Amino acid sequence: MIYLDNAATSFPKPRAVVNAVTEAFYEYGANPGRGGHEMSVNTAGAVFAARQKLDDLFNGGGVEKVCFTSNCTQALNIAVNGLVEKGSHIVISCLEHNSVYRTVYRLKEVGYADFSVFNIGRDEVETLKNFRKVLNKRTKLCVLTAVSNVFGDILPLKEMCDVARQNGVTVIVDGAQGAGIIPLDISGWGINCLCAPGHKGLLGPMGTGCLLINGVSPRPFEVGGTGTMSMSASQPSQYPERLESGTLNVPGICGLSAGTDIVKENGTKKFFEYENNVCRYLAGELQNIDGVCVYVPFNGAIGTILSFNISDMHSESVALELSRGGIAVRGGFHCSPLAHKFRGTEKQGVVRISPSFETTEKDINILLNLVRKIAIKKYI
Amino acid sequence: MIYLDNAATSFPKPRAVVNAVTEAFYEYGANPGRGGHEMSVNTAGAVFAARQKLDDLFNGGGVEKVCFTSNCTQALNIAVNGLVEKGSHIVISCLEHNSVYRTVYRLKEVGYADFSVFNIGRDEVETLKNFRKVLNKRTKLCVLTAVSNVFGDILPLKEMCDVARQNGVTVIVDGAQGAGIIPLDISGWGINCLCAPGHKGLLGPMGTGCLLINGVSPRPFEVGGTGTMSMSASQPSQYPERLESGTLNVPGICGLSAGTDIVKENGTKKFFEYENNVCRYLAGELQNIDGVCVYVPFNGAIGTILSFNISDMHSESVALELSRGGIAVRGGFHCSPLAHKFRGTEKQGVVRISPSFETTEKDINILLNLVRKIAIKKYI
Repeated sequence: MIYLDNAATSFPKPRAVVNAVTEAFYEYGANPGRGGHEMSVNTAGAVFAARQKLDDLFNGGGVEKVCFTSNCTQALNIAVNGLVEKGSHIVISCLEHNSVYRTVYRLKEVGYADFSVFNIGRDEVETLKNFRKVLNKRTKLCVLTAVSNVFGDILPLKEMCDVARQNGVTVIVDGAQGAGIIPLDISGWGINCLCAPGHKGLLGPMGTGCLLINGVSPRPFEVGGTGTMSMSASQPSQYPERLESGTLNVPGICGLSAGTDIVKENGTKKFFEYENNVCRYLAGELQNIDGVCVYVPFNGAIGTILSFNISDMHSESVALELSRGGIAVRGGFHCSPLAHKFRGTEKQGVVRISPSFETTEKDINILLNLVRKIAIKKYI
Repeated sequence: MIYLDNAATSFPKPRAVVNAVTEAFYEYGANPGRGGHEMSVNTAGAVFAARQKLDDLFNGGGVEKVCFTSNCTQALNIAVNGLVEKGSHIVISCLEHNSVYRTVYRLKEVGYADFSVFNIGRDEVETLKNFRKVLNKRTKLCVLTAVSNVFGDILPLKEMCDVARQNGVTVIVDGAQGAGIIPLDISGWGINCLCAPGHKGLLGPMGTGCLLINGVSPRPFEVGGTGTMSMSASQPSQYPERLESGTLNVPGICGLSAGTDIVKENGTKKFFEYENNVCRYLAGELQNIDGVCVYVPFNGAIGTILSFNISDMHSESVALELSRGGIAVRGGFHCSPLAHKFRGTEKQGVVRISPSFETTEKDINILLNLVRKIAIKKYI
């Protein structure tokens, strides 16, 4: 199988990640922060080391501001629900995933807060203009994806953080497709919350994610046992425990820790350039196939995700034919209705290609040959 | 190290569990329900099989009513917040963990619902009487732990479910210490929500848990991408997707699946009887040591968890001395303030012993010798 669905989860995981998970079952098998015995203390140490690496990778607000979650969606739920002010206004981009869209939509439905969606522009200037235009006096929060999970657009986050700061707006970044792939500088850019999955660009196992906070104090979303302040009926005030109730995914966190090491050793630039080259080659070739429509990012700058359609075929049918040919890609809507409405693909969806550092030219040529066959068949 | 902290998380995990986790990285490495390609479909199949096993073990309401969570705390947050009615009254037992207590306390703090705590009795009749006494016309929900995480008390859940049903009260069971250890019969007893960790009695990895629903439809707590109804701004109406946003912990679920197999093959009775024998032997011996106070369950019926103190020493000091002697137990308050207030141990906490199926008589004798030494030293 040729795996080109890394935007859903990276595959295969590096051997070091799998080994770290396995090792955790033997070395770090106790519940961290839930006892003073040696293995519990050692396990807490392994979890702490993982926090340090993530804080370092993203230039975060301190190791105690790195909260582990079960995925990026949980991190976004905590961040948005934990920071939203009653009666306030939230701004999101037209590229946001349902993890953001459904979260703010629910807040609007229950009358807690309302939100506006801004369209990205053909260039940075237009994007920033559109962003500024939807801000109003009640706007307290914005949620911005680093990279579109459908079309691969990369938002000018640094500049958007400047605009947000000038307007007193807190910035939550959805790093689902950006973390580990593009630079994300929490302290340098003034990101207030970075939400990231552990199992995509950070190469860790499914079941992991993190929320890094900087200069903000989200209210807890889940509550429960934290192993601290046991006799109190309320959550402790200190982070990360305040946002981490119940037992952590220790084997997963150990795997994420190993994945983060690999990202740090290689640097995001190396991964980005490799995957970007794959996507640019792919785009060039796909554009030469009759009946294929390629959806490059709106500003034309190809990233590390590329989508296309064949004629009027539903994208899921194309994905199914590719799967029969041994290629794993994702068709459909990718949980991103706003992005599809913006690009006019809400009927067909798109076939999404998300390569990894292990994708070869041969893989892509096999894909291209299959696409050619499907496209020709369509016209016979 | 002699590990007697299985109530925090079971250790060591069975080899089959570790192998299932490792295998998942190679065989089930795609995101389930997020694509139609072969590995995604196979991964969804592995997750489905895990749901089936849990539904079967607990005689649940159907495989689609088994929702995976990251731990028992998340399951309890979803169940309580998803079922509570505005202005209603909740009843909880005096043995509830902070995962329950902090959850209902917050609901009271924000004025959404209020709650009462009932004390368990010296026998079933008294417990049921106390339970009935706190029910009122506004009571819509009760949360009952199956087994106390501090003292090992086992609640008469079947009979309490009868009382609840007669009063139109929905029953949420906290199976943190009960699942995999005592029988829990969702359909037979009329449990509406069973919340369970995957990493304790079910022998799976940390980072796993589940919520089994029966005859109730909890509102979503987290929202986000579900891989279904992608173009909708609201959560899908079907379970389990409605309560499962974001990527699932696939390797963890595969491990939990293997752990559940082991529990089913052996039967909870076998595990219970073994651990119960350990605790009864331990209680008998500890009671003969000068200065040791043993806390058996309130009705005198020893279960699979046993707690004690030595004179007026803080339980955490005792746990630390035991750790230095190579024994892993947990001192302190175990995130259960209500239970400590009820038993009058809110100053010292207690030293909790939670054996497993792998605990040997030799382990317990080493523990007893160390306790004797600590107790004697205290009097010199």
